[in-house]
Amino acid sequence: MGLLRCCLLLLLYLSCVFCLPTGRNSICGYKSCPATIASMLNVHLVPHTHDDVGWLKTVDQYFYGGRNNIQHAGVQYILDSVIDQLQKDPARRFIYVETAFFYRWWKQQSQSTRRIVTQLVDEGRLEFINGGWCMSDEATTHYSAVIDQMTLGLRFLNDTFGECGRPRVAWHIDPFGHAREHASIFAQMGYDGFFFGRLDYQDKSRRMKTKEMEMLWRASESLKPPLADLFTGVLPNGYNPPEGFCWDQSCDDAPFQDDPDLEDYNVNEIVHKFLNASHKQAAFYKTNHIIMTMGSDFQYENANLWYKNMDKLIKYVNALQAKGSKVNVLYSTPSCYLQELNQANLTWPLKTDDFFPYADDAHDFWTGYFTSRPALKYYERLSNSRLQTCNQLEVLGGSKSTSGPFGEGDSDTMRRAMGVAQHHDAVSGTEKQHVANDYARRLATGWAHCEVLVSNSLAYLSGSAAPRVFCENLNISVCPLTEGSHKFSMNVYNPLGRTVRWPVRLPVNGSAYNVTDANGKAVDCEVIAVSTSTQEVRRNRGYAKNELVFQAQAPPLGYSTYIISRVQGQPPSSSFKTKSPYVIQNKFLKVRFDPNTGLLSSLTNLETQQTIRLTQNFYWYNASAGNNKESRQPSGAYIFRPNSSDLFIISKTAGIEMISVYNTVQEVTQRFSPWVSQVVRLYDDRKELELEWTVGPVPVADGLGKEVITRFDTDIKSTGYFYTDSNGREVLERRKDYRPTWDLKQTEPVAGNYYPINSRAYIKASSSQLLFIYLYPKFEAKQDEKCQLTFVTDRSQGASSIDNGSMEIMLHRRLLYDDFRGVGEPLSEPGEFYQGLVARGRLLLMLTSPDEAADVHRPLAQGMVLQPLLSFQDGSPAASMKLQFSGLQAALPPAVHLLTLSQWDKETVLIRLEHQYQAKESKTHSQPVTVNLRKLFSTLEVLGASEMSLGANQWKEDMNRLNWKNEANSKPLPPRARDSSPWEVTLNPMEIRTFLLRVR
Amino acid sequence: MGLLRCCLLLLLYLSCVFCLPTGRNSICGYKSCPATIASMLNVHLVPHTHDDVGWLKTVDQYFYGGRNNIQHAGVQYILDSVIDQLQKDPARRFIYVETAFFYRWWKQQSQSTRRIVTQLVDEGRLEFINGGWCMSDEATTHYSAVIDQMTLGLRFLNDTFGECGRPRVAWHIDPFGHAREHASIFAQMGYDGFFFGRLDYQDKSRRMKTKEMEMLWRASESLKPPLADLFTGVLPNGYNPPEGFCWDQSCDDAPFQDDPDLEDYNVNEIVHKFLNASHKQAAFYKTNHIIMTMGSDFQYENANLWYKNMDKLIKYVNALQAKGSKVNVLYSTPSCYLQELNQANLTWPLKTDDFFPYADDAHDFWTGYFTSRPALKYYERLSNSRLQTCNQLEVLGGSKSTSGPFGEGDSDTMRRAMGVAQHHDAVSGTEKQHVANDYARRLATGWAHCEVLVSNSLAYLSGSAAPRVFCENLNISVCPLTEGSHKFSMNVYNPLGRTVRWPVRLPVNGSAYNVTDANGKAVDCEVIAVSTSTQEVRRNRGYAKNELVFQAQAPPLGYSTYIISRVQGQPPSSSFKTKSPYVIQNKFLKVRFDPNTGLLSSLTNLETQQTIRLTQNFYWYNASAGNNKESRQPSGAYIFRPNSSDLFIISKTAGIEMISVYNTVQEVTQRFSPWVSQVVRLYDDRKELELEWTVGPVPVADGLGKEVITRFDTDIKSTGYFYTDSNGREVLERRKDYRPTWDLKQTEPVAGNYYPINSRAYIKASSSQLLFIYLYPKFEAKQDEKCQLTFVTDRSQGASSIDNGSMEIMLHRRLLYDDFRGVGEPLSEPGEFYQGLVARGRLLLMLTSPDEAADVHRPLAQGMVLQPLLSFQDGSPAASMKLQFSGLQAALPPAVHLLTLSQWDKETVLIRLEHQYQAKESKTHSQPVTVNLRKLFSTLEVLGASEMSLGANQWKEDMNRLNWKNEANSKPLPPRARDSSPWEVTLNPMEIRTFLLRVR
Repeated sequence: MGLLRCCLLLLLYLSCVFCLPTGRNSICGYKSCPATIASMLNVHLVPHTHDDVGWLKTVDQYFYGGRNNIQHAGVQYILDSVIDQLQKDPARRFIYVETAFFYRWWKQQSQSTRRIVTQLVDEGRLEFINGGWCMSDEATTHYSAVIDQMTLGLRFLNDTFGECGRPRVAWHIDPFGHAREHASIFAQMGYDGFFFGRLDYQDKSRRMKTKEMEMLWRASESLKPPLADLFTGVLPNGYNPPEGFCWDQSCDDAPFQDDPDLEDYNVNEIVHKFLNASHKQAAFYKTNHIIMTMGSDFQYENANLWYKNMDKLIKYVNALQAKGSKVNVLYSTPSCYLQELNQANLTWPLKTDDFFPYADDAHDFWTGYFTSRPALKYYERLSNSRLQTCNQLEVLGGSKSTSGPFGEGDSDTMRRAMGVAQHHDAVSGTEKQHVANDYARRLATGWAHCEVLVSNSLAYLSGSAAPRVFCENLNISVCPLTEGSHKFSMNVYNPLGRTVRWPVRLPVNGSAYNVTDANGKAVDCEVIAVSTSTQEVRRNRGYAKNELVFQAQAPPLGYSTYIISRVQGQPPSSSFKTKSPYVIQNKFLKVRFDPNTGLLSSLTNLETQQTIRLTQNFYWYNASAGNNKESRQPSGAYIFRPNSSDLFIISKTAGIEMISVYNTVQEVTQRFSPWVSQVVRLYDDRKELELEWTVGPVPVADGLGKEVITRFDTDIKSTGYFYTDSNGREVLERRKDYRPTWDLKQTEPVAGNYYPINSRAYIKASSSQLLFIYLYPKFEAKQDEKCQLTFVTDRSQGASSIDNGSMEIMLHRRLLYDDFRGVGEPLSEPGEFYQGLVARGRLLLMLTSPDEAADVHRPLAQGMVLQPLLSFQDGSPAASMKLQFSGLQAALPPAVHLLTLSQWDKETVLIRLEHQYQAKESKTHSQPVTVNLRKLFSTLEVLGASEMSLGANQWKEDMNRLNWKNEANSKPLPPRARDSSPWEVTLNPMEIRTFLLRVR
Repeated sequence: MGLLRCCLLLLLYLSCVFCLPTGRNSICGYKSCPATIASMLNVHLVPHTHDDVGWLKTVDQYFYGGRNNIQHAGVQYILDSVIDQLQKDPARRFIYVETAFFYRWWKQQSQSTRRIVTQLVDEGRLEFINGGWCMSDEATTHYSAVIDQMTLGLRFLNDTFGECGRPRVAWHIDPFGHAREHASIFAQMGYDGFFFGRLDYQDKSRRMKTKEMEMLWRASESLKPPLADLFTGVLPNGYNPPEGFCWDQSCDDAPFQDDPDLEDYNVNEIVHKFLNASHKQAAFYKTNHIIMTMGSDFQYENANLWYKNMDKLIKYVNALQAKGSKVNVLYSTPSCYLQELNQANLTWPLKTDDFFPYADDAHDFWTGYFTSRPALKYYERLSNSRLQTCNQLEVLGGSKSTSGPFGEGDSDTMRRAMGVAQHHDAVSGTEKQHVANDYARRLATGWAHCEVLVSNSLAYLSGSAAPRVFCENLNISVCPLTEGSHKFSMNVYNPLGRTVRWPVRLPVNGSAYNVTDANGKAVDCEVIAVSTSTQEVRRNRGYAKNELVFQAQAPPLGYSTYIISRVQGQPPSSSFKTKSPYVIQNKFLKVRFDPNTGLLSSLTNLETQQTIRLTQNFYWYNASAGNNKESRQPSGAYIFRPNSSDLFIISKTAGIEMISVYNTVQEVTQRFSPWVSQVVRLYDDRKELELEWTVGPVPVADGLGKEVITRFDTDIKSTGYFYTDSNGREVLERRKDYRPTWDLKQTEPVAGNYYPINSRAYIKASSSQLLFIYLYPKFEAKQDEKCQLTFVTDRSQGASSIDNGSMEIMLHRRLLYDDFRGVGEPLSEPGEFYQGLVARGRLLLMLTSPDEAADVHRPLAQGMVLQPLLSFQDGSPAASMKLQFSGLQAALPPAVHLLTLSQWDKETVLIRLEHQYQAKESKTHSQPVTVNLRKLFSTLEVLGASEMSLGANQWKEDMNRLNWKNEANSKPLPPRARDSSPWEVTLNPMEIRTFLLRVR
């Protein structure tokens, strides 16, 4: 962006965040690409390092090079060394990817080093690629957090280097499978292309044969092409150099020994080998350009080794051109390579599904990490919710938020903690235990900073600076304030753009309480005994005997305050008798249990009168120990490999410990074993059934690793089809033992059918089934006709449908062997008293017709992701206190989700508005919807708005992505609705729009 | 040296080899040392790398970083990186040691890099230390080769950097024990001090307690102090940094993590640890200066890691001075540290013995390598002889030598090959097998270059350019020319400064030959059958049936030509009958064998009528496999550790295969086992008995590693005393289970008594014994009174005297385990057909009175070191051919040895004259002796002479070493004789004088 544009934009009252410092003469980007030779095979050497933002060591250990006994890796030295080496020859190039590390390094540099680096960036010699805070995991991340971490990284680059710091290429060379939603996000962020290293070995083999290693990925079924089209290339050697050409400190390949006076002169041998490798690789690609990734994990700590030998490689290989060689090798970057592909002007194959699951061999499916470390996965998800709340309250509370009665608070710490937690060895659960602890500690520290901010903001908004308590352990019924207090108030902050009702369960020791809402109105509540399972899990962290249960409600982007007082001398609520002891129901759902087994037996949607048979139980797969004939692969943090497809049932029957039926909630507590229990809950007024499962410590004293699932067996004729979301957003169809783009040879009947779910999964009567019903209407029972059973989950998990009508979700894993993918530890998370970790979570079940399902699961899932934040103040609130607040003038339309609201700089906020429905999935909501930006907020005056790319590092109008020709796409979409005025923003299905708003 | 001095010296007709390039502003040497603080403990950090000139990899593999799978090490990168890092801060220092590597690197550098390096050297920021071609081994090297390799390295530094490139400090941080002769050499080369890392653990422990880690080493009993005095320091941690402070790429110690925003901030912890380490170390040293070696093997490949963290160390540690800390840490060099010690002006303890043997624990004596790889040790010794010959003939043949009828020849290749072969993992035998092969290959290549030079030179001197053949395999009776030819001539070149006679044995197939000398005079000769042992060893490499034996003679520094013709129809020589079949004798010696055992039984000096009982046999120690209770240490390439002190006899009796008695030679061939045999030879006219032993392949199929010795048992009352030479020069007294400087606790009764011998060893009636005889003259038998049995050997070996009157020499070793000192291979040298290596060698035995022994063993040992070179031409020589030549006007005086004669540059030659007798050892020769330089050569006119330091890198008159106060020395020496005129050079006992001669 030039200076002129920047100044024009000042008219929009935006601060000039993208201006380049004056006096710089930059020729970065595609303009800086090296010359190639059209008549030759051009080999693009891409010097790069892959720096995990935590894995075997913590991110800070990696940065400094601490704990090198675990793994030799020190990013500070990598950047030191690369910057030194780049200066030695203007032809040399380097790409850098992970901004979490670059940021740490940059902070420590002198002004003179910064000037040198800036010049290198300006000249395209150092190029940022991908540029997010980390290289995110694709299977277990939520799109909200992914967009945030990308924004964090890209903003740092933009603030530091301007336009020359903007990455053109997305670069996910290591994640273990690739999500379509990630591709969609990258496209919307303005990336011109995407390269990765890992895909199914069968897929790769076919693509090599058919020269389909490079393709156009159409990453959305809702967004009109080319909005979510992303040119995608599969790298030839993962992200490593060709065999024999690794010249890093960590490698042993022969260096050029080119002094003929010394022994072992090997120039001819290396050159010959390189020409062979080049021709071999070129056979799998369409153009006369090929890319070689010259680097790997934490390489270039001593960049001289690489560059010195690559200099010689280029010199000696190209010298042969004079003797007729047709190979031209050059330093390059992924974007320069991409530009050459673009200029080749070919028609590229189209890809519309995703790259899950990933297998690197017949028995090596990377589907275990979908579930690995379930508690960390939940804590990351919860932290996202907290960060959004923190961001919003920073905006709503203004400058008082970061500096107020509770001290100095900030959202940056949490943002950065979430940034590293998105890494593909973080939330994925594939890091060492001490590193998992570090991620959790970072999130906790981040929240501590946010807690101050939130407290300040709420103090400002409510007018009360009285001490405020946040209870971390409500899920195990621990909260000293509520347990001990006779009178306290509870603030429920709702980060969503519409009013929510939310069941609240507070640990208490009284037997009866009065609860009044912000209007002083009494609220129905019950006091229920704490379940034995919860008592077991919480151990001596708390002693509450009861839980106070009621439905709380909070306005859009705001809070409501409830006042709770203990009532002396009354007994706790007593359960009603029901007509049938093994049925719970409200006005929407009827849930039956089998009196003989104690298991769920059926589910009825009382509105539609659909009933399905529904049996649920808990099982475990026996993790392979790697000692069988077919393969030595054991289950581990990455790999799921059951020893056989046989499931071991934990208990054929569930002991029903308690059936509690109250006005507000009905609960059935099931005990399957000492380490598996579940509470089935049906709240008044809710359409979903809640299953709160508790699993662990998983026993392994029998020497068997266990992968624990819950399975739902129904009479829905799903016939192998099931549906899973992609990063919590668009849904993909899955089919057992099938891949859309190649003829699958299934070698792992269970693990090879597992897919990640981030927010939801469902089964329904399959398309063919529906067709069958259409043809033979009387043949099938009614309940199958339009039946969909949807699961909304609270964290990322692995799931599958192995049998017709069945859906299984993996909840927890405890393993005894490392799976040889580098982590070097068996996944066996420690818990208290040398036992294993106990995990607790929630599944929400909905039974609907397929075409009404989205209307329920979309808002429900958003509510699961962005949970209300509860905080408590002891005693009675002051009379002056504002008990209720909403940041919005009105609730957003049902299709609109407020994805982001955060402070950008002093006078600017970043906002993202999202259409949360896919095209065609909802009759009601899959339509364009309009929001007026000026009429959005109740307390903020919007003075100007400027639309940005999704990553907020480019003006929307400047986005000018490369065009690619592709094979015809068969699925047309309706025309995209346009904005009617600058303030009236129209969202089409699945669209996210990003704005910087100048506010007062 | 300034420009002025240089120009003055031109008056001496010397080329200006030491001038600095003009315009350079150097402040190197002691002047460049950093400031210290007198009131504080000054910690001198010495950044350094220890680069083995071959060990686990070959020297060129180490240079380039090839074969990094064996060991990660690449010296090219070390120097690249250090030069980069030194430029970043003028306070940073680095020392470099091994010129073999620096030379390779320098050759490849651009002019601009060379300029930068030169400036760093001029400013003392890069300092050369030691500076020889390698860091030589001290136990197994010969002083001649050590002086050569030092000269080679120092000359390169001097030519390249001038005075600023001159090392001030000798630095032998890794060799496994320290020879007194090395210290003497360093002193004579002008070094101000010497530091090393390895010494006996008991010695070190005592020195630490008594603060005698630093001392003055009086390294000669003949040279007048301070000529051979060398300040010597024992480094505190070998050559490693203190524990916890290794910041190399290859180490895992925690880096400074000094960003308080990141986790694991550790500045206080590291600083505290460093202060502790400093105070702890200071307790063992006398001054308020201590040295820390910050580096180790092949470190600094990525120097940034070291310097970045040391910068921080200095910053944070010295920052505490403001808070009262009394520790001052600084970048320094060994010479700057030495200067501070010198300025402390203390009195230092005196050391007069040496540092052998070296043990690093109770059962870990590094005495195995004295013998390891006996064939390599011999080949290195032979190569030294060839190099001296090559050097001499380059001088004598003039410019025709390097470019003549046989092509282009040079001595540099051999000189460099010998330079690397002196390394402490080369001739020591402690390298991997493939590296041992490489050393041998280099020597062979060196000789191939020399062979051309020698051929050219002999062609020039003799006037015959007819093809000339050098037979490599005469020691196993293989030489195709002599085997097949009916008439040929043999050139005997004698590299010594006096006439030698030398028994020649040529493989032939005829049965009778005529031999005539250069004067046409017939020479006595015999044709003797090739021994069965030789036939077995040579296998199918040759088929000669007989050996032609005669005594050849050659003039000083010259050659003689013998003409040999086959005589048809005569039978081979037939052996005489002797009076007694088990006695051989000539006019000097009578040798008896026991008819029952076949072993030697006595030796009589016929001149003095001394007779000793002398039994010799072959034995092996069973090498420890490391599986015993006391220690897990096995025998290996370094360590000698017999499983017990018991010797296993190979055979109690020797089968006598042949007794051959001729005019010229008498031989007894003994067979001890299929793998041990020996020929005992007594040549006509020789005072020594020759034992040619053949050992191998050492059988190990029984699972036992074997260390093969030969032991001589006599009735000499040596009472635990024996004598060994130091690097082939001065002799030290040894005493069983005793060390002169500490109260030895002997833990290995055999291995702990082994010492290296390089040229000779002897036993004699001990001093106390002689005293006893003096007191009680009639008590002891006459032969003990003044009896010395001297052994001259052909290579370096380990030897000891375990029992009274006994001397044992280890000949060969074959082991089954690695000894955990890094080489990672058992020492089991391969031979043909998957068998082990066969070694063959010679021992010369002399029986004399002690005060006549030196007169025999000194010239004999020099003759063994500098062997005549035989070459052959087929057919009759042309009439014009000059059959005899001497480069000297006359033989040198008997006490004078021509140590060096080699071309320096076009008009200059380097010459070293050596007094080869110790003070007091010879009545005749231990006197000053004078040589006139102008009257030395027969063909060269000496125009000017300038005396140099021993290393030839400094004018003698400029030598100005630091002075050190020391404890009183009790042994006065006679005053040193001075030169009577500039050309009349007087040598005092053991003195070596070095000159550059301008010649025509």
